[in-house]
Amino acid sequence: MNSHPFFTLDHTDQATKARAGTIITDHGVIPTPMFMPVGTQGAVKAIEQRTLSELDAAIILGNTYHLYLRPGTETLKTMGGLHRFASWTRPILTDSGGFQVFSLRELRKMSEIGVEFRSHIDGSRHLFTPENVVDTQRAIGSDIFMVLDECTPYPSTYTEARTSMELTVRWAERSALRHRDAPFLYGHRQFQFAIGQGSTYHDLRRDCMQRLVDMDVDGYAIGGLSVGEPADDMYAITETSTAVMPVHKPRYLMGVGTPENILTAIGLGVDLFDCVMPTRNARNGTIYTTHGRVNIKNARYKLVDEPIDDGLDSYISRNYSLAYLRHLFNAGEILGLMLATAQNLALYLWLTRTARTHILAGTYKEWAAATAQRLMQHRP
Amino acid sequence: MNSHPFFTLDHTDQATKARAGTIITDHGVIPTPMFMPVGTQGAVKAIEQRTLSELDAAIILGNTYHLYLRPGTETLKTMGGLHRFASWTRPILTDSGGFQVFSLRELRKMSEIGVEFRSHIDGSRHLFTPENVVDTQRAIGSDIFMVLDECTPYPSTYTEARTSMELTVRWAERSALRHRDAPFLYGHRQFQFAIGQGSTYHDLRRDCMQRLVDMDVDGYAIGGLSVGEPADDMYAITETSTAVMPVHKPRYLMGVGTPENILTAIGLGVDLFDCVMPTRNARNGTIYTTHGRVNIKNARYKLVDEPIDDGLDSYISRNYSLAYLRHLFNAGEILGLMLATAQNLALYLWLTRTARTHILAGTYKEWAAATAQRLMQHRP
Repeated sequence: MNSHPFFTLDHTDQATKARAGTIITDHGVIPTPMFMPVGTQGAVKAIEQRTLSELDAAIILGNTYHLYLRPGTETLKTMGGLHRFASWTRPILTDSGGFQVFSLRELRKMSEIGVEFRSHIDGSRHLFTPENVVDTQRAIGSDIFMVLDECTPYPSTYTEARTSMELTVRWAERSALRHRDAPFLYGHRQFQFAIGQGSTYHDLRRDCMQRLVDMDVDGYAIGGLSVGEPADDMYAITETSTAVMPVHKPRYLMGVGTPENILTAIGLGVDLFDCVMPTRNARNGTIYTTHGRVNIKNARYKLVDEPIDDGLDSYISRNYSLAYLRHLFNAGEILGLMLATAQNLALYLWLTRTARTHILAGTYKEWAAATAQRLMQHRP
Repeated sequence: MNSHPFFTLDHTDQATKARAGTIITDHGVIPTPMFMPVGTQGAVKAIEQRTLSELDAAIILGNTYHLYLRPGTETLKTMGGLHRFASWTRPILTDSGGFQVFSLRELRKMSEIGVEFRSHIDGSRHLFTPENVVDTQRAIGSDIFMVLDECTPYPSTYTEARTSMELTVRWAERSALRHRDAPFLYGHRQFQFAIGQGSTYHDLRRDCMQRLVDMDVDGYAIGGLSVGEPADDMYAITETSTAVMPVHKPRYLMGVGTPENILTAIGLGVDLFDCVMPTRNARNGTIYTTHGRVNIKNARYKLVDEPIDDGLDSYISRNYSLAYLRHLFNAGEILGLMLATAQNLALYLWLTRTARTHILAGTYKEWAAATAQRLMQHRP
C-alpha cells in the first residue's frame, strides 16, 4: 500500500466554491471534479473498457444491488473481485443498492435491522442490512463504497423526512463499525462514503450531514436528489450540504445530472458525479456535443457530413459524421448505440476534465456559464 | 491508379486444390483465402471499424439492396461513397441485392428486364435491372461488386434451374456492358464479379460458369448455395464450379459458412468467403474458439476464469474471461454482443489467415482436417 493521503485539495476557486482535488486509490489516481460512468452490472452499457480508458474515465461505478443478484457474491469472490472479473484496472465506486431497493416500492419491507426485498429478476427474497452490504462490497472489491441509506422519496412530509434521515444516520454508524472490523479481501484498500439525506428540508440536511461528519468516514455524498424535485431545490440543498461537509474530504452528488447541473454543482463545491443520462440518452438518440444537443434521429442530419463533435479529441467523435450516426440509428444498427455512447461519455469526461483546468486557472465561473449555455442549446 | 494485376496467384497446394493469392484494389491488398465480415447496412453489427482493422479484416461486405433503400443512392453520392460515409478505408465488396430481393417471395415480380419489388421497410415499389444495379454500385463505390443474378431456390426442377440460369447469364452480359460504359464516381477502380447459378445440376453449373468465363469479367462467384441443400451437394457443386473457373481470377463462394465449410471449400480452390454466421451466432450466444464451440449462456461457464480464446492474439479474446462473457449475456448487456462478435470474427479471420500460411508451407491438408475437427466440437 502507499502513504499518500486519500484526498488532497489542490485548489479552491475564488469566484465560486469550485474545487480541484486529487483522490488516490490503490487502483489509481482520480483528478476531481470527475464524472463517473455508470456500469451497473459490471459493464458500462454499449462501450468497451478500453474505450473508457481512452476517454480518460478515471473511475467507473458498479451497483451492489445488481451485482449481488448477478453474477452474485460467491462468483465475484471466486473471480477475485469485480476489477479482475470485468478486466477494469482503474478505480471502481459501488453504490450500496439502497436507491435500487427503495425503487422496488411493492417488493420491499423496511425495518430497523435493514430492508427485505424481492429480486426484480426472479422474485426471490433477500435482506440487505448495513453490515451485509459492507460485506457484499468487500466481495465486489470496489475502491470506494457507499453505506446503505434510505433514499427518502420526493415529496415527503417533514416528519417522514426526519424519521427516514434518523434511520440513515443509525445505519451509517453500523456501516462504519462493520467497515472497521471486516477485512479487505483482495489486498487493496477500500474507502467508505456516507450519504446525507433529509429531503428538501435544509435543517434536516444540515443535521444529518453534521452527524455523518462526526463519524469521520473517508468521504461524503449527497443522496436523495435528482428524484423529481425542482432544480433550484437541488442546488439549494447541495449548497447547504457542502457548507457542512469537511474541506479535506471528497464530496459526491449522487445521480446528477445534465451538463448544466454538473457545472452548477461544481460551482457549489462538489467533486464527484455519476448519472445514467449520457449513456441512456445515447441509446435513445440524444447526443451531447460541445456545440449543443442533437436529436440524431432527426432528418435534418441526413446529409450533415461533419464530425459528430469536432470540439473533442476522441477518436469516435472526430472520425464519424452526424449523417453516418443518423443512418445507424435509422437502420437500427448496434454500432449507433456504441458510437453515441462513446460520444456522450467523451463529452461528460471532457466537461469535468476541462472544469478542473479552469478551476486551476481561476477562470471557472465565466467558462462554466458560457459552457452550460452552449451545451444545453440545440446544436445550431 | 496503379498497374499491379488485380489478382496474383501466389501458390497452389499440391495435396488439395487450395490456393494462396493476392488481390490488389485501390483501397488496399487482400491476401487470400480471406473471410469478409458482413456489413449489410454499411456497418458490421456490434463492432467498430477500428476493431475490424485490428482483427486484420482486409475487406468487408455491403449489400446493394439494403444500401439502396437506406441511406439511399443520393445520400451515398453526396457523402462521397460508402468508404467515406462509413469511415472504412480498406476495400469493400457489395453484393448485388439479388439474393435479398429473391427472398422477398410475396413482394417481387420477375421479368426479362429485371425484378420489381416492394421495400421490406415501407412497401414502396422499386425496379432492379442489371444496369441500374451497376449504377447503384457506382454510387456506393465498392471496390468489388456483383452482377444482378437470379438466386435459384432449392430445390428446383431441372427446367426451372435451367430457365433461371439462362436469365442470370443474359443479365450478366448486360451487367458487363454497363460496367464498361458507366464511369467510376470517386477516382478509384471498381471490379466486377459474375455469379454462377444452376442449382444442384452439375451440367447447368458447368455450362453457366463457362459462359460467364467467356465474358472475361474480373472474378467469379458461386451463388445459390447454402440455401438448404445438403453439405455434400454444396461441396460437389463447388468442385464442379472451380474446375471451370479460370486459374488467374479470384473465386468467391457466397454465403458460406461454418469453419468446416470454409476449410473444405478452400481445399476445393475457393479464395473468398462471406457469411453472417460469425456475427449472427455471436449475438445468439454461440462463440467460436480455437478450442471448439461454446454456448456462452450455459451455466457451466459461470466460474470459468479463462480467456475467451487463448489461441488467438486478439485483445478481446485474451482479455476477457468466459465467466465474464457469460455474465454479460445473462444480464442482457450490449457489451456481451460486442465481445462475442469480436471473438467470432477474430476466429474466422484467423482461420483464413492461418489457412494461407499452411497453403504456402504445403501443410494445408493435415492442418485443415485437424482444425475443422477441433473447431466444430464443443469446447472441452
